Amino acid sequence: MTKEPFTLIGTAFHTPERCRLEVLQDHLFSVDAQGRIAEILAPGRPEYEARANAARQAGTLVLLADGQFLLPGLVDLHIHAPQWPQMGKALDVPLEVWLQKYTFPLEARYADVDYAREVYADLVDNLLANGTTTALYFATVHVDASLALAETCLAKGQRALVGKVAMDDPEQCPPFYRDADATSAVADTRRFIEAVKVLDPQERPLVQPAITPRFIPSCTDAALQGLGELATEFGCHVQTHCSESDWAKQFVEARFGQTDAASLGGFGLLTRHTILAHSNFINEPDMDLIKEKGAGVAHCPLSNVYFANAAFPLRAALDRQMHVGLGTDISGGYSPSLFDGCRHALSTSRTLQSGVHAGLPPEQRGAPGEPITHQEAFWLATAGGAEALDLPTGSFRVGHEFDALLIDTKAKASNIHINAADDTLEDVFQKIVLNAARANIAMVWVRGRMVVG
Amino acid sequence: MTKEPFTLIGTAFHTPERCRLEVLQDHLFSVDAQGRIAEILAPGRPEYEARANAARQAGTLVLLADGQFLLPGLVDLHIHAPQWPQMGKALDVPLEVWLQKYTFPLEARYADVDYAREVYADLVDNLLANGTTTALYFATVHVDASLALAETCLAKGQRALVGKVAMDDPEQCPPFYRDADATSAVADTRRFIEAVKVLDPQERPLVQPAITPRFIPSCTDAALQGLGELATEFGCHVQTHCSESDWAKQFVEARFGQTDAASLGGFGLLTRHTILAHSNFINEPDMDLIKEKGAGVAHCPLSNVYFANAAFPLRAALDRQMHVGLGTDISGGYSPSLFDGCRHALSTSRTLQSGVHAGLPPEQRGAPGEPITHQEAFWLATAGGAEALDLPTGSFRVGHEFDALLIDTKAKASNIHINAADDTLEDVFQKIVLNAARANIAMVWVRGRMVVG
Ligand SMILES: [Zn+2]
Ligand SMILES: [Zn+2]
Repeated sequence: MTKEPFTLIGTAFHTPERCRLEVLQDHLFSVDAQGRIAEILAPGRPEYEARANAARQAGTLVLLADGQFLLPGLVDLHIHAPQWPQMGKALDVPLEVWLQKYTFPLEARYADVDYAREVYADLVDNLLANGTTTALYFATVHVDASLALAETCLAKGQRALVGKVAMDDPEQCPPFYRDADATSAVADTRRFIEAVKVLDPQERPLVQPAITPRFIPSCTDAALQGLGELATEFGCHVQTHCSESDWAKQFVEARFGQTDAASLGGFGLLTRHTILAHSNFINEPDMDLIKEKGAGVAHCPLSNVYFANAAFPLRAALDRQMHVGLGTDISGGYSPSLFDGCRHALSTSRTLQSGVHAGLPPEQRGAPGEPITHQEAFWLATAGGAEALDLPTGSFRVGHEFDALLIDTKAKASNIHINAADDTLEDVFQKIVLNAARANIAMVWVRGRMVVG
Repeated sequence: MTKEPFTLIGTAFHTPERCRLEVLQDHLFSVDAQGRIAEILAPGRPEYEARANAARQAGTLVLLADGQFLLPGLVDLHIHAPQWPQMGKALDVPLEVWLQKYTFPLEARYADVDYAREVYADLVDNLLANGTTTALYFATVHVDASLALAETCLAKGQRALVGKVAMDDPEQCPPFYRDADATSAVADTRRFIEAVKVLDPQERPLVQPAITPRFIPSCTDAALQGLGELATEFGCHVQTHCSESDWAKQFVEARFGQTDAASLGGFGLLTRHTILAHSNFINEPDMDLIKEKGAGVAHCPLSNVYFANAAFPLRAALDRQMHVGLGTDISGGYSPSLFDGCRHALSTSRTLQSGVHAGLPPEQRGAPGEPITHQEAFWLATAGGAEALDLPTGSFRVGHEFDALLIDTKAKASNIHINAADDTLEDVFQKIVLNAARANIAMVWVRGRMVVG
């Protein structure tokens, strides 16, 4: 699938490395017919004017206006697609009620593929409008509805990894919503993987399958074993929940006598292409193992406030150079925006390091380590997530695909207020990270295709 | 100042008491020429049709469309108006740098009244667009610029309490930005109070003065004494910062041998019309004293993440029936939206009760008490703040003034997604509280005057 090449001129912000904001002021970006960044030129470079003029004459020049800035597209590492209709509700009930009364019955409805198509079209449109150019999705146990999600992403142009959820343990899963048994959980996962590969047969597919055991407590040993074998056979992505809460941690340790991460490793489910959601309660050996395997963590700071009982040890993970990105965890998290995700990551990190309980002396209040910066938060939402997924996106680099947002600070309903006389471009970037909302996202491209705007 | 009476029909949500959401489905609201709510009628009441028809014939009927809902206006108890230009920047530097390099030099610029007028016009427009119908402002030390803020609020129709900041201690305040001495700090405050009373001489003024010692460390004893005498003389509102951080708490205790709250009480600055910003480190006797005096707290959960080292003991304060509302604390907080404030209050409360440090056992991780609910968060942002200020707003009640927002869940850039078949009105309310953004605020009224829309 080729598109017309185009050229964009404007000021871009990105974080090519975790602690480094790079401001590409008035740079020229050439996007080729495959949607890749073919060239990035600073003003004053000899080819700059020629390229600009050629694109202008061809009618393929995009020129950012005053107050507009280019950012890399956002990478959301944890979304429960079927929970989209309940985003922002039922967060006032205990976990058991949330699961049994709301979440499982809702997910069970996706046996109806028409319902799935309707919801997923709305979901993908809304996530793209919020700037999520790459999404890692849990779908449901249903192969057909999960395929409908993959088809929707492909049709709407969202880079996506989609998982048919495996959950077969009758002790933990409700009778109306689970795989029939381990054999069918694995067979259906295989069928789903193969179907997605047929759906998007490109050499560099836009949409890919992900092996998705819901979490260890919902799967039998046989299912985990079979899914691990599929991971080896296909080399595709794997996603699951890891050590999210006190309960989950204790459940797995009681069952296997070892942690979530170690258990997943034993089943062959911890690979360079594995994303572990949450991981709040991982210990130091877990971190070493995750780092050694090259797996990544989807840090979901907002949903952790509701369901986790503690914060992910983000600074410790970053200090070890673990792969980490951000997840909205819709609908455990109520916001579809990874800009909100950046801000929640900042708040959680600051809160973890400072502590919260004023009744304790300062030195007993928090955990050791420095809180993350807004640059690091943005890196998590872009390049960090892309690196965790091993995908060529998340920053502006020749050879990367052009997944980008046009942020309009002067949009109606904007809460980003720039004062040209007083604000440096670094200030502008901070103001964007701290106040960008959906209303500021004027255009979105994925692989060079304009998908919003 | 009278306006044409009007009638509005639609579904409203409000929290007339802290734990009670009331859904006024398809109710009729009559607003009189003084901007007061004259009548609230449920459908089926005998006068309902007659009132609706009369308004329709008079061309003064406002009919909410499908997906639109009415909420009380938001009450922001803590805003540093002069810091508006730096909202969302400089939050990556230590407090001392934030104060000395950014904040004090910026506030000093308001010696220039033209600059003040320009910034304050932009500020008030933006806060109204975010739904803040009542604002409690710290201005600067400058009488004229502070008056410009009061004039701006009056002209634009925002209900406001404005304080000329008093800060006279040369040990703590920079030479380029402080009151010359205690005498002039008090004299200028008196002059400011009198001028605001001239500005808005209505029996029920829309804009009122507030006595505003910045915080105890920036004021001499003489200034605090003089300001306390003014509070007694005028009976007007008082605002200051209280026990925000470890440093502030310790500074005051070292200076006076007692807490902030007790010290303020001693100077006559703790009254039924006092709002204490933050108060994170107040102890139980402080709470008893604040409750006894009828003073209130402006809880600022977002800025606390940056500058406070701990969370306000919100549940403990609410259990004592203390007056509490929310503050954005612009620009210590980067968001101008009290919807964000509700969400940060929820997160902070949940985090305080659950704790954050996964390395600790669950029972040592957090503070005792139940986290607040989304209903309580919304109450804090509306009726709670209004009660703290002793103003007739914050909920829909006959005799209250009509300060209201029209929320359009179907607005462009909306992240509120209602499914009529599956969501109850209580669900709709939760979805609004958890995802409302500036883009959803289609109209805003203050005292019956449409100020946005
Ligand atoms: Zn999840
Ligand atoms: Zn403040």
